[in-house]
Amino acid sequence: MNRFLLTLLLCVFSISAMASDKVSFGVRDSMYSNILKEKRQFYVSLPPSYGVTEAKYPVLFVLDGDIHRWKAISGVLEGLSTDTLGNQVAEAIVVAVPNTDRSRDLTPSVLKKWVFEGRVLDTFSATGKASQFARFLQEELIPKVEVKYTTNGRKILVGESLGGLFGGYVLIHQPSVFTDYLLIDPTALWDNNYLNRAHLSANLKGKTRRVNVYFAFANNTKLGKIGTTNLKWGQDFASRIQLNIDKNYKFKQQYFERESHGTVALMGWYHGLRYLLANH
Amino acid sequence: MNRFLLTLLLCVFSISAMASDKVSFGVRDSMYSNILKEKRQFYVSLPPSYGVTEAKYPVLFVLDGDIHRWKAISGVLEGLSTDTLGNQVAEAIVVAVPNTDRSRDLTPSVLKKWVFEGRVLDTFSATGKASQFARFLQEELIPKVEVKYTTNGRKILVGESLGGLFGGYVLIHQPSVFTDYLLIDPTALWDNNYLNRAHLSANLKGKTRRVNVYFAFANNTKLGKIGTTNLKWGQDFASRIQLNIDKNYKFKQQYFERESHGTVALMGWYHGLRYLLANH
Repeated sequence: MNRFLLTLLLCVFSISAMASDKVSFGVRDSMYSNILKEKRQFYVSLPPSYGVTEAKYPVLFVLDGDIHRWKAISGVLEGLSTDTLGNQVAEAIVVAVPNTDRSRDLTPSVLKKWVFEGRVLDTFSATGKASQFARFLQEELIPKVEVKYTTNGRKILVGESLGGLFGGYVLIHQPSVFTDYLLIDPTALWDNNYLNRAHLSANLKGKTRRVNVYFAFANNTKLGKIGTTNLKWGQDFASRIQLNIDKNYKFKQQYFERESHGTVALMGWYHGLRYLLANH
Repeated sequence: MNRFLLTLLLCVFSISAMASDKVSFGVRDSMYSNILKEKRQFYVSLPPSYGVTEAKYPVLFVLDGDIHRWKAISGVLEGLSTDTLGNQVAEAIVVAVPNTDRSRDLTPSVLKKWVFEGRVLDTFSATGKASQFARFLQEELIPKVEVKYTTNGRKILVGESLGGLFGGYVLIHQPSVFTDYLLIDPTALWDNNYLNRAHLSANLKGKTRRVNVYFAFANNTKLGKIGTTNLKWGQDFASRIQLNIDKNYKFKQQYFERESHGTVALMGWYHGLRYLLANH
């Protein structure tokens, strides 16, 4: 028995020794959502000084947050918030939320068939639940994160493509869910110019949004009229929203001529984080 | 005793359960260097498909490779080599080497006092051991990495500032240590234009280098003549080296007007990796 115990103990110690050589990037966590009626995973990475100082941190909520996107944006932030890139931005927690049903959660209106000028761009089984997904973030995920980690109240939504469309929807209807919006090449083509139509119907003219907003747009002229229209409608919406931003808050939009829809994300994070979370 | 054993087992299982929620970023490893006569640490991160497919991978060797720089460049690479940014570059292993004595290892000539136009820029206790550090990489670290991991022979040196100076030195004297050089804002100001002087004394005119080279330069005009001279000498050296590059290999240099010495690294990685490890 003693030998067995010894073996077991050695086994435990060698597992611990192996583990100490591994460098953790963060955790994969999950929660059951009563609003979405499903279990949702999310990844969390913490800044270098977390737990070392008494500091409280902003939180980035990253849509389409699979493990690769999480590692990529966390890496960019790790660089920007340390000596590596001159401590340009505040340290922050990153919470990345992978999809279970992307078109259901990130679209604001029901579309079985997505048509642009007579051409079917895509068909879907479920769409139009952005409002419900925003409630999941506001009432379930954000409170959980704020209880578990030392946060400072800054909540930055990072959304791209349909995630950018979702961000635009939240800016119109539930702007106080986040304090900051980092929106990259939003799918303004959705549902025949949904974002601008929704802005008009919501009658937002003269209404103020106390949030910081950064938009990145890509060059999609290779896609023909789909690309140029998506850009025009997206920039129209950005300029419209700009008029709603309280003068004590920030607004910026940038166009990246050399990046396309599929490549623009890093430029959006880099410039958007430097703008929204600037240290200097 | 049974209860004790049960507790111990439960303890082991709960440690394993906790560990499964942690997401590993890679490992911290170390080796004793007979050349440097000291123990050297290094960080290793593996690409997403590593161990899943039979593929072999290029290796990035990152100088000044502390944990933050390692995470940052690995994050950028994770984005560029996955769907996140359009699968633009090949997946690769990242080996980051933290410093023990930066000015000793990364400088090619002995300088107690670094003077530029009568002004002392810095003083050092140890300098001039670049050749020895290059031997450590070539004879000790690279072979160890190539035995331990499935590599494809591509070896990309990533060096910035003094690390870029080191890369320039290796390009002159031991070019075959690496197949690719990604050099960012090198300290061309070192030892009164060391790189160009060494290129001339080595009589490299007409000699061929079968390597791929990418240089990123920053705008350091804020530093006055120190900044403008460092840029001029760096670009002179880059243009000189360009003439040595075999026509079947790649050479590119880029100037980032909006980035300074302390901020240019990410732009260098982003554009340099897209150039050197382009998938398309």
